[in-house]
Amino acid sequence: MSFDRLLEAIAEKQAPVVVGLDPALSYIPEFIRKEVYARLGETLEAAAEAVWIYNRGLIDALYDVIPAVKPQYAYYEQFGWQGMRTLAQTIGYAKSKGLFVIGDGKRNDIGSTMEAYANAHLGTIQVGTQVHTAFDVDALTVNAYLGTDGVEPVLKACAARDKGIFVLCKTSNPSAGELQDVPATDGRPVYAVLGDLCERWGSGQIGRYGYSAVGAVVGATYPQQLEELRARMKATVFLVPGYGAQGGKASDIALAFDENGCGAIVNSSRAVLCAWQKSGGPEEDYAAAARAEAQRMIAEIRSFIPKITLRI
Amino acid sequence: MSFDRLLEAIAEKQAPVVVGLDPALSYIPEFIRKEVYARLGETLEAAAEAVWIYNRGLIDALYDVIPAVKPQYAYYEQFGWQGMRTLAQTIGYAKSKGLFVIGDGKRNDIGSTMEAYANAHLGTIQVGTQVHTAFDVDALTVNAYLGTDGVEPVLKACAARDKGIFVLCKTSNPSAGELQDVPATDGRPVYAVLGDLCERWGSGQIGRYGYSAVGAVVGATYPQQLEELRARMKATVFLVPGYGAQGGKASDIALAFDENGCGAIVNSSRAVLCAWQKSGGPEEDYAAAARAEAQRMIAEIRSFIPKITLRI
Repeated sequence: MSFDRLLEAIAEKQAPVVVGLDPALSYIPEFIRKEVYARLGETLEAAAEAVWIYNRGLIDALYDVIPAVKPQYAYYEQFGWQGMRTLAQTIGYAKSKGLFVIGDGKRNDIGSTMEAYANAHLGTIQVGTQVHTAFDVDALTVNAYLGTDGVEPVLKACAARDKGIFVLCKTSNPSAGELQDVPATDGRPVYAVLGDLCERWGSGQIGRYGYSAVGAVVGATYPQQLEELRARMKATVFLVPGYGAQGGKASDIALAFDENGCGAIVNSSRAVLCAWQKSGGPEEDYAAAARAEAQRMIAEIRSFIPKITLRI
Repeated sequence: MSFDRLLEAIAEKQAPVVVGLDPALSYIPEFIRKEVYARLGETLEAAAEAVWIYNRGLIDALYDVIPAVKPQYAYYEQFGWQGMRTLAQTIGYAKSKGLFVIGDGKRNDIGSTMEAYANAHLGTIQVGTQVHTAFDVDALTVNAYLGTDGVEPVLKACAARDKGIFVLCKTSNPSAGELQDVPATDGRPVYAVLGDLCERWGSGQIGRYGYSAVGAVVGATYPQQLEELRARMKATVFLVPGYGAQGGKASDIALAFDENGCGAIVNSSRAVLCAWQKSGGPEEDYAAAARAEAQRMIAEIRSFIPKITLRI
């Protein structure tokens, strides 16, 4: 329907930050892995269980300081269906703690196949007379290389169940420009063509704060494009990767926000998840270290943007 | 490493056809659903079990006439982790019957996240001292909107474990052109920019028949572009959707092949999966109806291309 729920949660906590739950096994403290391997062997099930314990600890330590988490699906898929079970558990637990959950799956397809992805992550699925949900996140990242046919099925789910999507627009990685910066004959680079499509796709679902249900992924590592797209995409919430580890600075990130400090949310994954490896404290305190790093990051970003104010 | 195994299987069976295993519940005969619901209730587990029974029947009826199957991940994800378990079972069973399995996940991301997708679908994952595989298909479809950073991790897995990828290039859907046909200032449409990238990505892994480990998805519904890309992408195997239901004709599809009838594989999903709904026979014969439709399609395509001959 729109991103109102997310924007309200950001304003309430004055924290435009989402923590990416990207649990590589090497990020998980040894005491968790050891206990689980002793219990379940060195199996995919054990890996998935270790991730679940680790995530639960992180969510418990973070839910009152951040508005949202973003599980990255690849890190769960690598542990097979057992990992996908942990993904579903993690989504459910984060939501039970009041967190807005962004499923980072970058899903894409067309027609009835994209409907199946919409069922899986934003909508419902009917089995006989019963209606179920599968992963049921609040918002899903989507790759729109296939155009409108790949977006309409998720837009329907957004309208029906008050959900949102973030469409890859200008990503944060070094090779992003190979395709995204290709200059079209009408003067627009490809990322701007996609940006304009995002505005069009969102135009039917504008919320009370002027932002639609269609957000965009715009990286912090290309500040000039970030500024350009912010001016161009008035109704589009930005999900901003690339802060910290990838080189995006808080001063650059300020360009993602509107004059009310609104309209963007900045992702951090490794810096928060692996804070315990840098803190020098005992690994048992991994969740407290994550919380401290999240708070540090929030304060840093807030120092570069206005007080976050929702204007109707 | 290359698509040699796939090309050999196609030539051996003289069948350049892959059947998409896209099991919507409505495609599954009622006798299967009824039995499963009676046993497991109208649950996600039951839906996943119905898909598994249905798929097994299809694979048993098809494995000696077609070289490959292509499970479309969305149809499994919509049944949650239970559906993903069925996906893993289906992949394993199809491989045990000698089929080449193309995982149609259209996965995409960068760096360590794309490595996790590579682990999940083409590579291995280490848990403690043990090495596991998760979904372990022979080839994976990939969306390359993020550029080389999103492809390198899967290329490594291809080299290490004799796997391949198919990169979305020019898709078969009506809105494909919104982004893919955008004309660049250098004269190339975006799909050709991507086509040239595919050739570059594949150049390090060319097999004995001149085709690399990097294939491309090029739809049958745009014959002019299909012909243009076939001429442009000499080392790239084409995975061709859009035949039948979407309007692609066998005479157009012939444009995807080289002068030896090699270098392409045509997908059919619904026409084969739902053949039983059109046949007028009892639903218990769904697998035989699928086999007959696959054979009809193979004969039709073969009538438009030369005898499939592998030339070293």
